[in-house]
Amino acid sequence: MNADKPNQTIDAFHRGKFWLVQPARGAHRAGLDAMLLAAAVPGNFSGVVADFGAGAGAAGLAVIARCAKARALLVERSPEMAEFARSGLTLEQNAAIAGRASVVEADVTSPAAVRVVAGLTDNCADFIIMNPPFNEEGDRAAPDALKRQAHVMDTELWERWLRTAAALAGPKAGLALIARPVSLPEILPALKGRFGAAQMIAIHPREDRAAIRIVIRAWYGARGKLTVAPPLVVHGPSGNRFTARADDLCNGAASLFGD
Amino acid sequence: MNADKPNQTIDAFHRGKFWLVQPARGAHRAGLDAMLLAAAVPGNFSGVVADFGAGAGAAGLAVIARCAKARALLVERSPEMAEFARSGLTLEQNAAIAGRASVVEADVTSPAAVRVVAGLTDNCADFIIMNPPFNEEGDRAAPDALKRQAHVMDTELWERWLRTAAALAGPKAGLALIARPVSLPEILPALKGRFGAAQMIAIHPREDRAAIRIVIRAWYGARGKLTVAPPLVVHGPSGNRFTARADDLCNGAASLFGD
Repeated sequence: MNADKPNQTIDAFHRGKFWLVQPARGAHRAGLDAMLLAAAVPGNFSGVVADFGAGAGAAGLAVIARCAKARALLVERSPEMAEFARSGLTLEQNAAIAGRASVVEADVTSPAAVRVVAGLTDNCADFIIMNPPFNEEGDRAAPDALKRQAHVMDTELWERWLRTAAALAGPKAGLALIARPVSLPEILPALKGRFGAAQMIAIHPREDRAAIRIVIRAWYGARGKLTVAPPLVVHGPSGNRFTARADDLCNGAASLFGD
Repeated sequence: MNADKPNQTIDAFHRGKFWLVQPARGAHRAGLDAMLLAAAVPGNFSGVVADFGAGAGAAGLAVIARCAKARALLVERSPEMAEFARSGLTLEQNAAIAGRASVVEADVTSPAAVRVVAGLTDNCADFIIMNPPFNEEGDRAAPDALKRQAHVMDTELWERWLRTAAALAGPKAGLALIARPVSLPEILPALKGRFGAAQMIAIHPREDRAAIRIVIRAWYGARGKLTVAPPLVVHGPSGNRFTARADDLCNGAASLFGD
């Protein structure tokens, strides 16, 4: 952590392959979720990846740091977070990737006419990744306004986000999302008729604990049915160190779906 | 296997704790699916368990063999399979449990008035277990009529089966189902508003292979959200032997959800 200003930090990801300017505190700081989401994109991906709810850009930049021919649209509705993302692209440490990324300040749930003006045109994306905001349990205090905005819950959230993803999806575009397991009953119906051949991976903190997240990857217009891949276990039986696989995924050295 | 008649077998389950009379051939013979489904019922369960689509009675009898105070309603619509179930209850080997089981020849998708006459009254069950029929991929040949009947696919199947389960469920009744992962998008919406606090376990044939089944357990009227428990791996890295945990579950020596 290199404090640039008192209220922000500059942090290395993928062992220094890219960096983020982030708010110094708060649950919207990027971590494992964003790295696992990015790891769902195949390593040989080329084309445009749209990162919905990009925040400071963690997931989108992780994709283009790993996929040398990919370009990222970092879509973020919060002006403050979009500014963090733009700051990140000006960092000297990101010179190698910044030319392949741009920030789109837009709400993915806006009507089509509004998002098109912002630059989110139909069929513009070859892959869409999303890590929508949610309320953590026990998180009701909502200590600051930024965090509150990022975590607004919406029962229609998945329907809206996936509807926009389908609109932006080019032919055979990929989709990846990371969510809490409680959201599955909302996610699966919203995928129906849009993205098929879905694969799900549960993320367990330890081998014997319930999953804290699920990652789903699917393909626009594909007909295949849902499959459940072997889970990812983040930590060993004790201690806080990552398992070798989680560490590789977190650092851009592996793909979540083996491709 | 003791051939009693040329077209049927008498087979031991739970290391001889109970026996089934089954058709000698066909995919409707009971196996691991029925034993895992039964293992989803807590070991200290007492009350009435309704086994929807019971076939020869494998899952329902597995529950009462493990839960000494439980009684089973074996609900089966096929007259031939119901006859196999009734034959099983007359076996000398089942003398210790047969008094706690009865066969109800009924279609769980019948209108309420029809199923009530058959004996499936509202609030009659403390637990409902179900292993609905499905078409296996590559199973289109459907070699005989019994198998064809058992495997009729119905896009409305889960909605209908879970609607009837909710009607039969007494206060705080449990529900367990085993299904293919492809059915999740139909199952989760059909649970909504009926059975909550659902736990899901994926069943993987080997540690590195996609799940072949999911088991879901939930509770009537409960408000809790879906959780994803650690998966069950059936076989070790090579060979056909069960893992110790799968073997215990298959033989009534363990509970799938640890209770």
